[in-house]
Order: sequence, then structure tokens, then C-alpha cells
Amino acid sequence: MSNLWSLDNPVFTDFAFYAAVLAAKVLIMAPLTGHYRMTRKAFANPEDAKNFGAKDPKVNEDVERVRRAHQNDLENIPIFWIIGLLYTLTNPSHTIARMAFRVFTFSRIAHTILYLSGSVLRPMSFLVGVSANAFMIFNVIYNFI
Amino acid sequence: MSNLWSLDNPVFTDFAFYAAVLAAKVLIMAPLTGHYRMTRKAFANPEDAKNFGAKDPKVNEDVERVRRAHQNDLENIPIFWIIGLLYTLTNPSHTIARMAFRVFTFSRIAHTILYLSGSVLRPMSFLVGVSANAFMIFNVIYNFI
Amino acid sequence: MSNLWSLDNPVFTDFAFYAAVLAAKVLIMAPLTGHYRMTRKAFANPEDAKNFGAKDPKVNEDVERVRRAHQNDLENIPIFWIIGLLYTLTNPSHTIARMAFRVFTFSRIAHTILYLSGSVLRPMSFLVGVSANAFMIFNVIYNFI
Repeated sequence: MSNLWSLDNPVFTDFAFYAAVLAAKVLIMAPLTGHYRMTRKAFANPEDAKNFGAKDPKVNEDVERVRRAHQNDLENIPIFWIIGLLYTLTNPSHTIARMAFRVFTFSRIAHTILYLSGSVLRPMSFLVGVSANAFMIFNVIYNFI
Repeated sequence: MSNLWSLDNPVFTDFAFYAAVLAAKVLIMAPLTGHYRMTRKAFANPEDAKNFGAKDPKVNEDVERVRRAHQNDLENIPIFWIIGLLYTLTNPSHTIARMAFRVFTFSRIAHTILYLSGSVLRPMSFLVGVSANAFMIFNVIYNFI
Repeated sequence: MSNLWSLDNPVFTDFAFYAAVLAAKVLIMAPLTGHYRMTRKAFANPEDAKNFGAKDPKVNEDVERVRRAHQNDLENIPIFWIIGLLYTLTNPSHTIARMAFRVFTFSRIAHTILYLSGSVLRPMSFLVGVSANAFMIFNVIYNFI
């Protein structure tokens, strides 16, 4: 069998692409939080409050909301990074693997949009992402047990 | 030397198995939190509270406890995913590597059980996991310095 | 082309080294938080408070500060672990790759030191780390699109 972690394996290069898109997606959450902190003048640290013309640290619900969206990313996306990498080793069909990677990636982008807009559909986008991860986890455990 | 990230290397396939078990373990924390939020009617967002028949978001100590257990996973398990992968490249003995992977995995499952039951033994399970990670980190740094 | 995830590729072995240094850096945040909790008698759980001679759980600003530094690590370092690994596959020049790995690693160590000392320079160290990650993400997406 040829090496599955190879630039010749389209499942592997697809994983690399979607893993990087998700890295960009998580990276953007920090400046987004910064934007909310600035516009709401709601900082976590006294030195930041002072530095940006606020009196004291304070809690703002908009800031907390974007932080909850960020936290939900941290709870789900690193799982994708390891399990997508290992799932590649189960030599899945390209069509199915690409669908799992895409569904997860789109679900996470949708999750943040739905979270920030306060939509009641947010838990559904979350469950779609969890299902994609669960599908890959099942395949990896079944393959390596 | 043959490739160490290979399905022919039992250290590597063991790592893949335990990494996937830990992925499943972290994944389960989210529905578990959801269960506590539902039964305690304690939601983080107004739209969730409204959707599930609670008046307002509220903080519940049981929900916070499961969230702290989840957070502790996020602080420790991604370290395992990268360091276990890199530790495989130090070509360790299969017996020792398997023990490190197993000890870490069991310590994290024990940690959540002990956390949710409020046991004073919880810090010990935490330290066992940290020790397994520290052992692998030391070996990787020593090998690649 | 030879395999880029190989012990013969200096970009790859450099990545392994810095990834492990960052794993050690994150690992240290937990005992550091423990130290602050002990000296400030500020625990998150009733069983810990009781166990270590405090009456009740309480919130302490020094503990919260080290926890925010830890959280910022969790928001940034796992991104490095996956993107550094994938960036190696773009076959970058050793000089540039080593600089990206070093700049990120030093920025994260500086970030924690600046955070704990309450320095207003902390956001700059954060932005340096984000820039190193963004540079690698851009290269990976551009390469695998």
C-alpha cells in the first residue's frame, strides 16, 4: 500500500485544505472579539481598559457571545484536526471523505454566523459538525482497534 | 530506517487508536453539558432559554462543573494529540509507548468521572495525565534539540 | 519528490522541536494556575477549597489573569500545531520556516510573561504570534487550493 499521508492522495490534500480553512476561521475569532471589546469598551484587564479609554474592566453580553462562539470552536475544531488526519489513514473513498471535511467546515462557519445573529438554528449547525466528527472517529476506532 | 508514521509501526497505530478514543471522550462532553443545561434549565443564551421553556439565561453549579471538566480536557488532550504523534518519531519501545498512551487515556476518563462526582482524588488523575504528557514532551525535545 | 514529513527534512524536525517546546509551555500553565490558587486560597470547587483549608470557592483576580493567559494559549497554540505540520508540506525554505516557528514560539512565551506582569505590550506579542500563524495558513491554503 502506498503512503496515505502523501501529496498524491487527494483525500490527504483535501484534508490539508479544509484544516487550513478552519485554522483561518478560528484565527479570525480573536480580532473579532477585539472589535467587540473596542466598540463596547468592555475589556478583561485593567491595563487594556486604561489603554483604550475605558475606566474599568467590564462584562458586555455581545463580547461574551462572541467568546462563547470562539469557545465552541475550541471544543470542536481541534478534534477535527486530529481525527481528519487519522481518518485519512483508513483509506476512505474520496467522495465520502471530501463530504465529511466540507460538511464539518461549513457547519462551523454557519455555527458562528448563527451564534452571532442569535438564531435558534445554532444547535443544528453544532450537531451537524459533531456528527461529521463522530463519523470519522467511529471509522478510525473501528479501523485501529 | 523505515517510516515511523506507518501502519506497519505498532506504536503509530496504537497512537491512532488512543487519539481517536480521546476524541470521542471530548466529543461526549458537549451533549453531556447539554443534558445538564436541559435538566437544570440553565442556558447561556436568551434564545436557548426561550426555546427550551426557561425564562432567562442562568448559571447552575452542576453545569459549571461539567464545563470545568470539559475545559480541563481542552487544556490537556490537544497536547497529547500533537506530542503523541511526535513521540512516535523518537522510535520508542512499543511497551513503553503503549503504556504512556494508555495511562494518559485512562487518566482523562478517570478525571471526568472524579470531577463529576466531586472526588478529592481528581487532582491525582490530572497529575497522572500531565506526567504522561510531560514524559513524551521530554523525549521529543531531547530527541529533536 | 521525497517525503517532507521525514526526519531528513530539517523543516520538519525544527517543527517537531518547536511544537514540543510549545506543548511544554502550555503544560506549565496548569501548575502555575495551581500555584496561584494555593497562594490566593481561591479555588473553583468546594471539595478543593475544603481540601486546602479555604472555606468556599472564590474568584481571585490573579488566578483569573493566569487563566486568561492559559486560555489565550488554547486559542492560538493548537492552530500552530496543525498549521506548522501542514506548512512543512509546502516545502518552504528552511530559513523562512525556522523563522516562522521561532517567532511564534517566542511570541507565545513573551505573551504569558507580559500578561502576568500586566504590560500594555501584551497585545503586540499576541499579534506577532497571530501573524506567524496567518502567514503559514496563507501558504497552506494557497498551496492546497
